[in-house]
Amino acid sequence: MNASDTDDASPRLWLEDLAPGRTFRFGDYPVTREEVIEFASRYDPQPYHIDDAAAAANPVFGRICASGMHTMAMAHSLQMRGFGQVGIHPIAGAGMDELRVLRPVFPGDTLHIEIEITETRPLRSREDRGLLSYLTSVVNQDGVVVMTYRSTLFMDRRPAQA
Amino acid sequence: MNASDTDDASPRLWLEDLAPGRTFRFGDYPVTREEVIEFASRYDPQPYHIDDAAAAANPVFGRICASGMHTMAMAHSLQMRGFGQVGIHPIAGAGMDELRVLRPVFPGDTLHIEIEITETRPLRSREDRGLLSYLTSVVNQDGVVVMTYRSTLFMDRRPAQA
Repeated sequence: MNASDTDDASPRLWLEDLAPGRTFRFGDYPVTREEVIEFASRYDPQPYHIDDAAAAANPVFGRICASGMHTMAMAHSLQMRGFGQVGIHPIAGAGMDELRVLRPVFPGDTLHIEIEITETRPLRSREDRGLLSYLTSVVNQDGVVVMTYRSTLFMDRRPAQA
Repeated sequence: MNASDTDDASPRLWLEDLAPGRTFRFGDYPVTREEVIEFASRYDPQPYHIDDAAAAANPVFGRICASGMHTMAMAHSLQMRGFGQVGIHPIAGAGMDELRVLRPVFPGDTLHIEIEITETRPLRSREDRGLLSYLTSVVNQDGVVVMTYRSTLFMDRRPAQA
């Protein structure tokens, strides 16, 4: 698929276009009470994610907060939509490392993500593909980093004719 | 909160009850086409997660497959419900490491998880709490491990009178 085949806003970026140190900011994602409770009810049904009284009794949170898994999902949504807008089209995810839950996320917060490219590496097994690694920080409306993690995904290398 | 205060099936387990090497199996989670598309549409809108024709054209998958983030969420659902059933009640998640996406997950698959406790560590800052670390393998109906990751969460230590 060439960039001209797509409806994306930007020309397609290949692995070679993403030098370590390059940064992106994608956002914003408004965190709603309804979505926090809906997500947690299905995937992380802890009382402090879905029940006001239980959350008030929790010594860490004090009120309903988002599941960490939900925060990851919201950040991933920002990332994938943002990647599409700047012309990054991953083949598939490979893994994540060093995910740290730093601060709670509450309904009413607004999140954005800051991504820094950390490494690009051609695959030995497939010369047309490589691995892209980057560090993601999830940041709330007060500029507080609530979560960080490192990701690696498979990307196409620039074709010889491109 | 004592075990007698809860409706759980099992007595509460404290950090000291979870020796490294102990294992748990929790499942099963049926992966439906509807949920795969619904989750991906919101959090990971890649064509190969939501569109049959695009998925058929993808060189890795060939048909619609679940978002890796969705696989994590389904595994987390199994874990949290399973933990409740065996009496494990985390205070909060702390982080994840070494998440590896090994094989695709397709609608029609049935997932379970296998957890092995790897480490317990008292907190220096709070003598009533500690950190529990474990390795999770997400396994499909054919016994194929589709994803692995390490998790750490905060847990209560056994009170002196318990």
